[in-house]
Amino acid sequence: MRHFEKELNLLRQSLLEMSGMVEAAIHGSVLSLTARDATQAEEVLRNEARINQMQIRIDDQAAQLLALEQPVARDLRLIMSAIKINNDLERMGDQAVNIAQRAQRLMKEAPVGAPVDIPEMAELAQKMVRRTLDAFVHQDPAIAREVIHSDDAVDELRRIAYRELLKYMKENPQSIDQCVSLMFAAHSLERIADHATNIAEDVLFLVQGIDVRHHAESTSGNR
Amino acid sequence: MRHFEKELNLLRQSLLEMSGMVEAAIHGSVLSLTARDATQAEEVLRNEARINQMQIRIDDQAAQLLALEQPVARDLRLIMSAIKINNDLERMGDQAVNIAQRAQRLMKEAPVGAPVDIPEMAELAQKMVRRTLDAFVHQDPAIAREVIHSDDAVDELRRIAYRELLKYMKENPQSIDQCVSLMFAAHSLERIADHATNIAEDVLFLVQGIDVRHHAESTSGNR
Repeated sequence: MRHFEKELNLLRQSLLEMSGMVEAAIHGSVLSLTARDATQAEEVLRNEARINQMQIRIDDQAAQLLALEQPVARDLRLIMSAIKINNDLERMGDQAVNIAQRAQRLMKEAPVGAPVDIPEMAELAQKMVRRTLDAFVHQDPAIAREVIHSDDAVDELRRIAYRELLKYMKENPQSIDQCVSLMFAAHSLERIADHATNIAEDVLFLVQGIDVRHHAESTSGNR
Repeated sequence: MRHFEKELNLLRQSLLEMSGMVEAAIHGSVLSLTARDATQAEEVLRNEARINQMQIRIDDQAAQLLALEQPVARDLRLIMSAIKINNDLERMGDQAVNIAQRAQRLMKEAPVGAPVDIPEMAELAQKMVRRTLDAFVHQDPAIAREVIHSDDAVDELRRIAYRELLKYMKENPQSIDQCVSLMFAAHSLERIADHATNIAEDVLFLVQGIDVRHHAESTSGNR
């Protein structure tokens, strides 16, 4: 059992390392978008391979733990959660790549004056990633709930962004390409927040045995 | 071991049932979009809860199998794959819901004459879902490769759809709302194809021990 705890700590460490990489990718991708910073965009694209390799390594760690320690009950659930969290983190990394690619395209065109608060969405989303991993590592339901709560704020910002961008496009049809790119960037940030929420819901399930996965969804299902 | 095989078959059956539900959801959501069929859209939204419940049931089945049978090596990998496939299927269901919600919004507005081949994308994506589950159930690498190959076709259709819709919007700014909705529907179909591809990559890994997950991505990374 002590050996199991040690291995489990290594798995937690790996997930924290992975989430650090993903957070950096989100941060870089948003900088590339808002500051039109080509170097940041390239770095996000370059680091994608590292995140992918990390995902494979964590899956292997989890498989080893399952095979060698044959955990049951709560320990088993914990490792199943780690596998899912790993998956969610990698998907967030993919979304950061999408944003960086949008940014590269936007850099080739004239800056657009559309009023859209990408930085605030991005900051919230990054914070959700960090906090949701805290919730997992400390098995803290209060932090998990806080993350789920933040998701509503991100959804609302995304809704406002869409509305403003649609309005701007209609008034400035020459900016349609740029506005659509910004809409997809906002969409990616919302997806990142959704993945963080998935993790928070897994944590609540783990800690309290309540499956909230699809309850949170039903309240925001009509967006 | 015979008991394990029996339980494993039940798990496979559940995944097939889930994929049938998801296929139906995709089909219904696309009908709601292309035929402006409100009943179909409502049914997709109503069935979301069933898909979600099924996901939870399959996760429980997998957890039971891991806990009671304590499989190792290939059997363990198989169950880990089942957990991931379950997750991918549920995400496809979410995308069908997104399409149905877009369809509901589009029904309130004038039909738009933009030339975009949603039905062909949808048919390809649905076929990928069905085939990728075939690949898993029969552990057939040839079918898995065929699915991965189809993903490029869906990506190409999505690229064409975006290009045509952007062009149409510029010429018909009064149709911007509808065109943006159609772009997001095309995006959802592409995501469904991506999830099918994830599953196919898992199958290849399972059958051949080759981790292709992030190789396929790197070839389509610059879209």
